Amino acid sequence: MAIQTNEYPARGYAATSPESGMAPFRFNRRGLRDNDVLIDITHCGICHSDLHTARNDWGRTVYPVVPGHEIVGTVSAVGDAVTMHRVGDRVAIGCMVDACLECDHCKAGLEQYCKNGMTGTYNGKDRQDGTITFGGYSDRIVCREEFVLKVPEALASDVAAPLLCAGITTYSPLRQWKIGPGSKVAVAGLGGLGHMGVKLAVAMGAEVTVLSRSEDKRADALALGAQHFLITTDKAAMRAAGGQFDMVLNTIPVRHDVAPYLLLLKIDGVQVLVGMIDKMPELHTGILLGRKILTGSGIGGLAETQEMLEFCAEHGIAPEIETIAINTVNDAYDRMEASDVKYRFVIDMASLAEGSDPLGRGASAAL
Amino acid sequence: MAIQTNEYPARGYAATSPESGMAPFRFNRRGLRDNDVLIDITHCGICHSDLHTARNDWGRTVYPVVPGHEIVGTVSAVGDAVTMHRVGDRVAIGCMVDACLECDHCKAGLEQYCKNGMTGTYNGKDRQDGTITFGGYSDRIVCREEFVLKVPEALASDVAAPLLCAGITTYSPLRQWKIGPGSKVAVAGLGGLGHMGVKLAVAMGAEVTVLSRSEDKRADALALGAQHFLITTDKAAMRAAGGQFDMVLNTIPVRHDVAPYLLLLKIDGVQVLVGMIDKMPELHTGILLGRKILTGSGIGGLAETQEMLEFCAEHGIAPEIETIAINTVNDAYDRMEASDVKYRFVIDMASLAEGSDPLGRGASAAL
Repeated sequence: MAIQTNEYPARGYAATSPESGMAPFRFNRRGLRDNDVLIDITHCGICHSDLHTARNDWGRTVYPVVPGHEIVGTVSAVGDAVTMHRVGDRVAIGCMVDACLECDHCKAGLEQYCKNGMTGTYNGKDRQDGTITFGGYSDRIVCREEFVLKVPEALASDVAAPLLCAGITTYSPLRQWKIGPGSKVAVAGLGGLGHMGVKLAVAMGAEVTVLSRSEDKRADALALGAQHFLITTDKAAMRAAGGQFDMVLNTIPVRHDVAPYLLLLKIDGVQVLVGMIDKMPELHTGILLGRKILTGSGIGGLAETQEMLEFCAEHGIAPEIETIAINTVNDAYDRMEASDVKYRFVIDMASLAEGSDPLGRGASAAL
Repeated sequence: MAIQTNEYPARGYAATSPESGMAPFRFNRRGLRDNDVLIDITHCGICHSDLHTARNDWGRTVYPVVPGHEIVGTVSAVGDAVTMHRVGDRVAIGCMVDACLECDHCKAGLEQYCKNGMTGTYNGKDRQDGTITFGGYSDRIVCREEFVLKVPEALASDVAAPLLCAGITTYSPLRQWKIGPGSKVAVAGLGGLGHMGVKLAVAMGAEVTVLSRSEDKRADALALGAQHFLITTDKAAMRAAGGQFDMVLNTIPVRHDVAPYLLLLKIDGVQVLVGMIDKMPELHTGILLGRKILTGSGIGGLAETQEMLEFCAEHGIAPEIETIAINTVNDAYDRMEASDVKYRFVIDMASLAEGSDPLGRGASAAL
C-alpha cells in the first residue's frame, strides 16, 4: 500500500487536561493511505460524550483530546485506491473511523461491535500506527473510505451533523425492534438523543409519548410531533399508563431507576437504554418476569447509518440545532450540562478560519 | 349457573403459620360449578414456591395454606356444562386455576398475565366467592375445566407432575426466543427448573452448556444431555466463552449478579430470568449497550402448557424425580433448601390414604 508521507497540517480545539477546557490546538493529519479520504470539515455536532471525554469522566482520556464525532464536510483529496468517494462529495463521519471489516460482526454490518475493536473517531487508537485519533472539532480529517458516509442532497450540512450520533443511536433500536405504524413508543429524556427519537419514531408511524419529570417540556414535545406527554412524577398517571407501550426509548444520560419505565411496557415490550447511565440501582426482577425486556444499543453499523441518513432526507427529518462558533465551545459545554440547549449544538467550522481562533489568527499565514 | 351445594371433604397437608411446618389438614372442596371438574389427585410435585409460601417468605401467605401446583390426577366428576373432560381422564393442573379469559392477554393465550389477575392454584383468591384456594398437597381438587390440562398417554403421572411448573417455566422462554437447531443455550442453576431447561433445550436441537460454580455437577450435566460444562468461577474460561450464547436460561432462585451471564451472550442474545431472585445487585448498563437483552418469564399459558406436555411425550422427556410419602414433606423442604434433590420431589398421594397420615388414620372411617 502506498502511503503518502506528507501530512496535512490541521487546526482544531483540544482539551489538554480534565480542567483545561477546550482551547485552540494545532496538529497534523496523517498522509493519505491508499484507501483514505481527506475531508474539509464544515460542521461538527457536540455530543455529551465529547464533554465527558474532555473532562476524563470515564477515566480513559488520552490528552490532548480533540473531540467531535458528528462530522460533515467535503472531500478534498482521495488515496490512490479510493473508489467510494470523489473530490467534492459532501460526506460525513460518525463515531468510528475504522474496524477490522473481517469478523462476523463487521460482516453482519455491525462494525460498531467489531470483535477486534472498532476505532473511535477521537480518543481511539489507529489500527495501523497506534496513534490516538483526533475528532471533528477541526478543519480537516483523514478517514478510511468505508467509514465515510454520503450526505443526501436533501439534507443541509449543519442539520446532518447530529444525525451521525444522536440520529443513528435512536434510529437503530427503533428499527431493530421493528417500530412502525401501530407501535406505541415512549421517549424518556428530551435532549439531543430524545428529540431525535421522537422525530424518528413519529416518522416511522408510531404513536409517541414523551416522558418527563415536569410540565416544562410539554409544548416542545408536542411541537416535535409527539402525540402525548406523560409526567413521570404523577404516580396515578404512570399507573394508568402501565402495560401500554411497545418500547420505552430511554435516552436519560445519568444514573436512575429504570423500573418505572419497565412497568409502562406491554408483555414483550422493550426498554432500550441508549444513554450512558453507569450503574443502575438495584432492580426487582419480579418486574421482568412479566416478560418485560431490558436492553441497550450503541450507535449503528455503517450501512444502517447510511440508511438512516436516507430516511431523514426522505422524510424531511432534521434535528433542532443551535449553531455556534468554535470559540464558544466551553460555554456550550456549560449550557449542555444545564440542559440549556434545544437540542443540539453544532459548530460551524468556518468560525475556525474566520479569525475567531486567537491562536490561529496569529499563525494563519503558516496555513 | 347451577352450583352443586354439596362440598367434597378433602384431606391434605397445610402450614398454619410460618413456623408450623406442614401437617395433616382437613377441609372441603367446593361443590361443582357447571364448568368445574373434580379430580382425584395421584401426584403432586414440590416447587420452591411451595416452601417460600408455606414459610411466608414473600409476606403474602394466607394461613392455613395447602401448597402444590404441579398436580396430576384422574377426573372423578364433572359439572353439568363441562365439555372438555370426562370421568376417568388423566389430567393435570399447573400454577393457575382461573383467569378472566376475556382480556387481551387471555385471548392471546397468556392467561398467566391476565389483566384482571389469574387465580393461583394455592393462596389465590377465587374469582367467584373470594375464598382462598388450596393446592395439590391433597387427595382431590375442584377446578374450572379450561384450566385442566390433558396428560398424554406416553407420560407417566409421577414424572408428568413437575412439568406443570418446572417444565412450562423453562419451555416457554425457549419457545418464545425461538431456540432450535444451531442455537447455543447456557443453563445457569441445575435444580428442578434447570435440569428441565437442559432436557428441553437439547430436545429442541440446541447445543447446551451447563453453568455451575464447581465441578460437582459436571457428570450430571452431561448425563442430562448437555454437551458442555462451564465453571463460572473460572475467569479465564468465562472470558473465553464471552459473546458465544444465544440464550442464558437463568434458573438460579437466589439473589446474584447477572452481569457475568450477560457477558456470555452474543449480540441480540438474551438472558431470561425464571427464578425469583428478588432485587438484583446494581448492574453496569454499559454491558447492555452491546445489545445484550435481559428479560424474565413466568410459567406459560394454557395452550402452551398443553403443547409442552405433548412435546415431552413425543420426545420422551421426563424430569428426574424422587417420589416421597406426604408425611416426609418437611424433610423434603429441608433437603430442597440444601439443594439435596435430583431434581424434583413428587408426592405420591396414595401415601395420604395409606395411613401414613396420623390424623387421617384415626378419622378415616369418616371419609
